[in-house]
Amino acid sequence: MNLVLLLPEDLVAPDRARLTGRRLTHVREVHRATVGGELAVGLLGGAMGRGRVLRLDAEALELTFVLDQAPPPKLPLTLVIALPRPKVLNRVVAAAASLGAARLVLLNAWKVEKAYWASPRLRPESLREQLLLGLEQARDTMLPDLQLARLFRPFVEDDLPSLVGQGTGLVAHPGTGGETPKGLVAPVTLAIGPEGGWIDAEFDSLCRAGLRPLDLGPRILRTETALAALVGRLF
Amino acid sequence: MNLVLLLPEDLVAPDRARLTGRRLTHVREVHRATVGGELAVGLLGGAMGRGRVLRLDAEALELTFVLDQAPPPKLPLTLVIALPRPKVLNRVVAAAASLGAARLVLLNAWKVEKAYWASPRLRPESLREQLLLGLEQARDTMLPDLQLARLFRPFVEDDLPSLVGQGTGLVAHPGTGGETPKGLVAPVTLAIGPEGGWIDAEFDSLCRAGLRPLDLGPRILRTETALAALVGRLF
Repeated sequence: MNLVLLLPEDLVAPDRARLTGRRLTHVREVHRATVGGELAVGLLGGAMGRGRVLRLDAEALELTFVLDQAPPPKLPLTLVIALPRPKVLNRVVAAAASLGAARLVLLNAWKVEKAYWASPRLRPESLREQLLLGLEQARDTMLPDLQLARLFRPFVEDDLPSLVGQGTGLVAHPGTGGETPKGLVAPVTLAIGPEGGWIDAEFDSLCRAGLRPLDLGPRILRTETALAALVGRLF
Repeated sequence: MNLVLLLPEDLVAPDRARLTGRRLTHVREVHRATVGGELAVGLLGGAMGRGRVLRLDAEALELTFVLDQAPPPKLPLTLVIALPRPKVLNRVVAAAASLGAARLVLLNAWKVEKAYWASPRLRPESLREQLLLGLEQARDTMLPDLQLARLFRPFVEDDLPSLVGQGTGLVAHPGTGGETPKGLVAPVTLAIGPEGGWIDAEFDSLCRAGLRPLDLGPRILRTETALAALVGRLF
């Protein structure tokens, strides 16, 4: 947690907050802060700055703060990721937030097991928690938009073309030989398939929706590794 | 596991192997292979090809195989990573292997807690297992060199300059404004700090050893995310 992210409900005054729960524990046990100490803070959806600890004990962290910096700009990036298995989902969602993607779509695909969609990790409060962890990691206050697309075809045929718009659409797909475009036109829409990849019909649909194939090379990477490598390459 | 990685001790004949344990379970339960089915296989340290299942039950997987492809080339990359906390270590080691780094050095640093060096995850067999998982993920057969550098100064002063050699040395460090070099000269040596970053004296030592600062921007990424983003950017 490189930023103590304040939620509106934490505020007890315009320049004062009171935290409990996970963030309290983290500040006590990992940051080992003390009364009078400073912490990097930010207000969810707002500015960032410095907080000073007024109280810190087993019950609560209270701090006063000044917010005078803008959060880092979002990348003009929409990630369209085939829903990963639950064990991987949290890391992917947090990584997408920490990398600064403006929007994340979790999409169904043939090789996404039906059971993944029933995972408790897909509950809104669980997804939000992972996004917040990603923001705290990266020192950002702006939540990315998050969309669950449980049906492949309506999303890809009806929504995806307008998401790509006048920007660059890319679909990561091994064996296509598609090279990383130079002089990328923002915004970028980037689709990453499931373990086992897109099936041919899905790949064709994605291309018809305006995405160009991008080949990461002979190595098959885990979703979260591929995601970070692609963002590092494109931006 | 995108490649069934055969170890020398699995071979019961030059073209036949017998597997038990984790790989057997994975092929049965995840690949759901059947007798007569094909699997991508590779021999650790050797070539890759196709295997055909001769037997598959609770006790063993037996397969015959033909190896006729070279593994993907390694990246001319030495990663020097401050030892991550144990929870993160496995993912970092597997990610480094899957990304294709030729060499990985786990280095001590001021902000690496002493206890991390006592973790059972640093045992050779545990580290090797993570490297193998990374190779299986990426479809590679060549283990990267792995070195534990428990003392910062001797490694950085005595070993690092010759590792950098005539290539490019980089140290990821926020706030330096160091840009990604264009026209990178291989081999690349890339140092990534601990959570909390390098202290000034360490950063200075790394620069004296021939590394140039590289600034990833305002976002602070987890080690494994930063690692993949940097490899994506540099190669």
